[in-house]
Amino acid sequence: MEKTPIPLRSFASDNNAGVHPEIIEAITRANRGHVPAYGNDPYTQSAIRKFEEHFGADIAVFFTFNGTGANVLSLQALTRSFHSVLCSDYAHIYTDECGAPEKLTGCKLIPLPHENGKITVKAVHHAYHGIGDEHHAQPRVISITQATEMGTVYQPEEISALARFAHEHDMFLHVDGARIANAAVSLGQTLRQATRDLGIDILSFGGTKNGMLGGEAVVFFHPEQAENFLYLRKQSMQLASKMRFVAAQFEAMLTNDLWRRSAEHANRMASVLAKELNRIPGVRIVWKVEANGVFAQIPHHAIEKIKQQYFFYTWIDEESIVRWMCSFDTTEEDIRKFVAVVADAMKY
Amino acid sequence: MEKTPIPLRSFASDNNAGVHPEIIEAITRANRGHVPAYGNDPYTQSAIRKFEEHFGADIAVFFTFNGTGANVLSLQALTRSFHSVLCSDYAHIYTDECGAPEKLTGCKLIPLPHENGKITVKAVHHAYHGIGDEHHAQPRVISITQATEMGTVYQPEEISALARFAHEHDMFLHVDGARIANAAVSLGQTLRQATRDLGIDILSFGGTKNGMLGGEAVVFFHPEQAENFLYLRKQSMQLASKMRFVAAQFEAMLTNDLWRRSAEHANRMASVLAKELNRIPGVRIVWKVEANGVFAQIPHHAIEKIKQQYFFYTWIDEESIVRWMCSFDTTEEDIRKFVAVVADAMKY
Amino acid sequence: MEKTPIPLRSFASDNNAGVHPEIIEAITRANRGHVPAYGNDPYTQSAIRKFEEHFGADIAVFFTFNGTGANVLSLQALTRSFHSVLCSDYAHIYTDECGAPEKLTGCKLIPLPHENGKITVKAVHHAYHGIGDEHHAQPRVISITQATEMGTVYQPEEISALARFAHEHDMFLHVDGARIANAAVSLGQTLRQATRDLGIDILSFGGTKNGMLGGEAVVFFHPEQAENFLYLRKQSMQLASKMRFVAAQFEAMLTNDLWRRSAEHANRMASVLAKELNRIPGVRIVWKVEANGVFAQIPHHAIEKIKQQYFFYTWIDEESIVRWMCSFDTTEEDIRKFVAVVADAMKY
Amino acid sequence: MEKTPIPLRSFASDNNAGVHPEIIEAITRANRGHVPAYGNDPYTQSAIRKFEEHFGADIAVFFTFNGTGANVLSLQALTRSFHSVLCSDYAHIYTDECGAPEKLTGCKLIPLPHENGKITVKAVHHAYHGIGDEHHAQPRVISITQATEMGTVYQPEEISALARFAHEHDMFLHVDGARIANAAVSLGQTLRQATRDLGIDILSFGGTKNGMLGGEAVVFFHPEQAENFLYLRKQSMQLASKMRFVAAQFEAMLTNDLWRRSAEHANRMASVLAKELNRIPGVRIVWKVEANGVFAQIPHHAIEKIKQQYFFYTWIDEESIVRWMCSFDTTEEDIRKFVAVVADAMKY
Repeated sequence: MEKTPIPLRSFASDNNAGVHPEIIEAITRANRGHVPAYGNDPYTQSAIRKFEEHFGADIAVFFTFNGTGANVLSLQALTRSFHSVLCSDYAHIYTDECGAPEKLTGCKLIPLPHENGKITVKAVHHAYHGIGDEHHAQPRVISITQATEMGTVYQPEEISALARFAHEHDMFLHVDGARIANAAVSLGQTLRQATRDLGIDILSFGGTKNGMLGGEAVVFFHPEQAENFLYLRKQSMQLASKMRFVAAQFEAMLTNDLWRRSAEHANRMASVLAKELNRIPGVRIVWKVEANGVFAQIPHHAIEKIKQQYFFYTWIDEESIVRWMCSFDTTEEDIRKFVAVVADAMKY
Repeated sequence: MEKTPIPLRSFASDNNAGVHPEIIEAITRANRGHVPAYGNDPYTQSAIRKFEEHFGADIAVFFTFNGTGANVLSLQALTRSFHSVLCSDYAHIYTDECGAPEKLTGCKLIPLPHENGKITVKAVHHAYHGIGDEHHAQPRVISITQATEMGTVYQPEEISALARFAHEHDMFLHVDGARIANAAVSLGQTLRQATRDLGIDILSFGGTKNGMLGGEAVVFFHPEQAENFLYLRKQSMQLASKMRFVAAQFEAMLTNDLWRRSAEHANRMASVLAKELNRIPGVRIVWKVEANGVFAQIPHHAIEKIKQQYFFYTWIDEESIVRWMCSFDTTEEDIRKFVAVVADAMKY
Repeated sequence: MEKTPIPLRSFASDNNAGVHPEIIEAITRANRGHVPAYGNDPYTQSAIRKFEEHFGADIAVFFTFNGTGANVLSLQALTRSFHSVLCSDYAHIYTDECGAPEKLTGCKLIPLPHENGKITVKAVHHAYHGIGDEHHAQPRVISITQATEMGTVYQPEEISALARFAHEHDMFLHVDGARIANAAVSLGQTLRQATRDLGIDILSFGGTKNGMLGGEAVVFFHPEQAENFLYLRKQSMQLASKMRFVAAQFEAMLTNDLWRRSAEHANRMASVLAKELNRIPGVRIVWKVEANGVFAQIPHHAIEKIKQQYFFYTWIDEESIVRWMCSFDTTEEDIRKFVAVVADAMKY
Repeated sequence: MEKTPIPLRSFASDNNAGVHPEIIEAITRANRGHVPAYGNDPYTQSAIRKFEEHFGADIAVFFTFNGTGANVLSLQALTRSFHSVLCSDYAHIYTDECGAPEKLTGCKLIPLPHENGKITVKAVHHAYHGIGDEHHAQPRVISITQATEMGTVYQPEEISALARFAHEHDMFLHVDGARIANAAVSLGQTLRQATRDLGIDILSFGGTKNGMLGGEAVVFFHPEQAENFLYLRKQSMQLASKMRFVAAQFEAMLTNDLWRRSAEHANRMASVLAKELNRIPGVRIVWKVEANGVFAQIPHHAIEKIKQQYFFYTWIDEESIVRWMCSFDTTEEDIRKFVAVVADAMKY
């Protein structure tokens, strides 16, 4: 590692990337004079209008600092402490938020087995029991991640079916959309088609992983569920004082299809990456590459070797599966160099 | 209000101001290539070294999104749920965080009467009882705000005395330093002299109100108390993924004395503002102007009249006390215009 | 202490007393065969009917283990974590539950100054502010203790006024009735007159201090507020499996006016005790003796001396005020002996 | 159901039984005069000495109201909110406490697949990952139930192995011993042999299901872990004021081997019940009958039919598995009658 120059861009995560130039410009533009703090400013109002353009009227939109904040606050809005939340056993809320959902909501999270990163109505149905029994945490929210933690994408009818099951059973459907842009692009859908039109109740709309400096949005498709959200957000320490700088990023993201351009590029790069990797003997692509991530099974010694030059995450250690993500700024040149390193590592 | 052009800068709050140009530059500079997320990046390491330059070695520094996050996490690091926290009844943690400290720590906050915004050893002593009694939440932390919520500044010996009392009684001293820069400047002290050298245990080091886009730091002067902090920060949803952009701001803030230049300017502007206001008959400056805020008692009708042109906060409604803050970008011209509006409003 | 025989009964607390014989009998009678656990048993149904006889129809009644459980669960039923609870700064929920209300509800408790143990509409009004401000915990419940922690009793119109203020401001009135029986007796009221008819929303109905082995009840006068109570009770670890033995105690308590007989006796003994103490030079009865407690100010050395023979609590150390409680089993002989010890201690 | 006389004793649960006569006597005996509340009384001291007789010196013992309280407080004593607890997916703490562990501790509970009601070192090992990763709740406690929720009993070496794994990995072993007496009897062990000697750290020692009116004990085998327990117990609303009546029950339970006599009887009755059931065609005993419970797989229609005369729980609905428990007061006559009803129901 000492001798090799550090590559400018890695495939570790889309949040290892920096900020899209249009976002930086938007921040700079917003840096003029004083405006009220905490969201009572024209930038925030304008960004919310952008959300309404994309998702339709009668929504409630709130900005948070990060994805964990957006997810946990979504759950807080829908639950009391005696409820439970059904999600994949690989859901970000289950495995990567250090117990924030449990700590903040008091709820039990029920892990369901996934199929290609997705949970099914069947699995939800299996976990839906103990209703009305005071000894049992009461199922209240189904939470899915779109695109999934395995780089796959729920089909529209899969989401509708989960929404239908939720609503028929006095539950709600939350979508962790840290990569919802990548999913919508993958499906050829608008943001609205990919979310609201499928019956989901609350969306964590991701910004950071799609080229923002920092910021996520919670979008309520039933604004009455947002009744207490201002208090919950403040109490959960997710209220930005200089909100205009989060808002300005979202406004840029939703202007001239920046969200789509960035996600499309990242998805396309992942597909190029997968294609190149597929040519290397011994590399097995584990799940369909439907968004901006490639999950590959390669020998442990190859993992070690590649990590000498690139930082990335082993996704499932015992199965020797690694994750490689593309982002808005990944180049074909980056892929070429990386694939060469992988190919070299696989030779031994 | 319709006809008056909105002033570029108000006196509502230092967090109504934007971002200092040197901070924006630092963010832009950091926007190059990929780096690991969550703080494992060279920018974060470099910013921490800057803290060590200012505060000395053997500290532990962590960045958070906002001041509430820094304060609550400081308390989480020091407490178990059966503890109590002693603070002013006007402390930000007591009145302006929507119960976040109680919700996140489970602790009881005990409000103490303040004198000019400050709590005294005497008041703390009075509240220190029920020790060893299982029915009683056990006092664990004294938390003070420096500069205070009333624009005053604790003298060094006042802080030392509180630190001494804390340590003699198996408690800790936390300082909410959202405006610690203004206080240090006011006292003619270095950051270290104003904090660590007085015996405080944990400092919430403010960035946002002193010209940053967003970000605060928790500084532990006894690093062993930070043992679990990484987990607490993540679980409390205060871990930034693109940490480099928080770190780069702090690095800039602690370089070439930007922290001092900005705070000095804001303090000086407050002192000019107070001087000008003092000339207006009927305006009473309530507390000594020792940092960047001016608190004035004026008739209700004058408040209403001024609010037609400027947004600001009534601080104590029943006493008709308002708060006007200066920031790094306040100009003498801003003050001149504002004072004219106040003078005009006071005529009726 | 070695040489003096320990008195059979002290004046330390009504929960230092044992169990009324009629209660023990009821427990024994209920010990027959198997019945379903957790309240689905005929004893529980029957006890609830007794509550309905006393308080009227359309109530919801739930048993808990102890008073802290009843109080905190009452608050949990009425609040979300961003709410606040207004109470006396000497309220049991504020000073004697080790932060359980904060920990379990997440809410902020706002201490109000008391007058003779009571809070007033004026004090509540003063603390009622920041409404609709997301930075501020939102006032939601007024909680009072009847009889108070100072042995006084709210007059009916004082409670009605607090209830009215609460309801006019979208709040609720909770009564910690650990000694509601003593209060009702003191006022010459029925249980219903002393509670429901005054507009209170939820009552913690005390059993343990009035001669039960253990058990309290939460009585909802607006059953729709109890919607989630079964889950809250279980999750807060207050659901008894062998519920019949709590229920049987309450049934006995509410049969043949046992509640009234016991409370009347305890109150009368307190009044006798006060009369006797009043004759001792230097003993100052601090608050009106309106229930079963006597609060006296006596010199510290006398406190020490009396404590050599009797265990009791110093109530306000710095004012040298002690608390002496009478219970269902206090005898005039007990008082005579105790007063002699006090008189003797006061001589020096 | 109208016409059939309700059987005196059912097989629904050992907590549907009443109170053992020796326990009732002990309560009655303790009902004499006043003693200090909250455990500062001779009865509590004496009961603790009994625990020391059985478990050895250098333990710390605390009484709670119920099993959920004992379990959750055990976990609270060992964890901070960012920890996780590994347990069977059928553990009482996971499925039957309405999320109390999550709510009170903030921790994540990780469900492990069970084998015959038991978790294995292998399953624990599989779930032990993400150590030192701030995104991941940190494994801290292994919690097992002895006897298990499936009526089986861990062998001593199985427990030792889990304790060893725990301690080698900076974790602790907690045992939910709601039926530890039944397990010890089943294994022919003393209470100490069945717990402390196997390396467990904290035991929830069950009283209620073995014939007490109500009460459980938390037994620390490393008293330093109990440092904050008094506060935790009070704050978690598990501190009995008239503690002597819980203590007196435990004293009786640990005197003249009442714990053993009751558990032995219950176990023996379960074994008789199993034998009789085995003779009925179509009844399949699902797990080994090693304690006081019998789990049988029978057709749904038979379940419905038996429930017309006996109340009991369907344990796993989708597999048509029911649970029948014996208790200290089950008679062979009870079994005969019940088995006849089952046999009859199976004919159709």
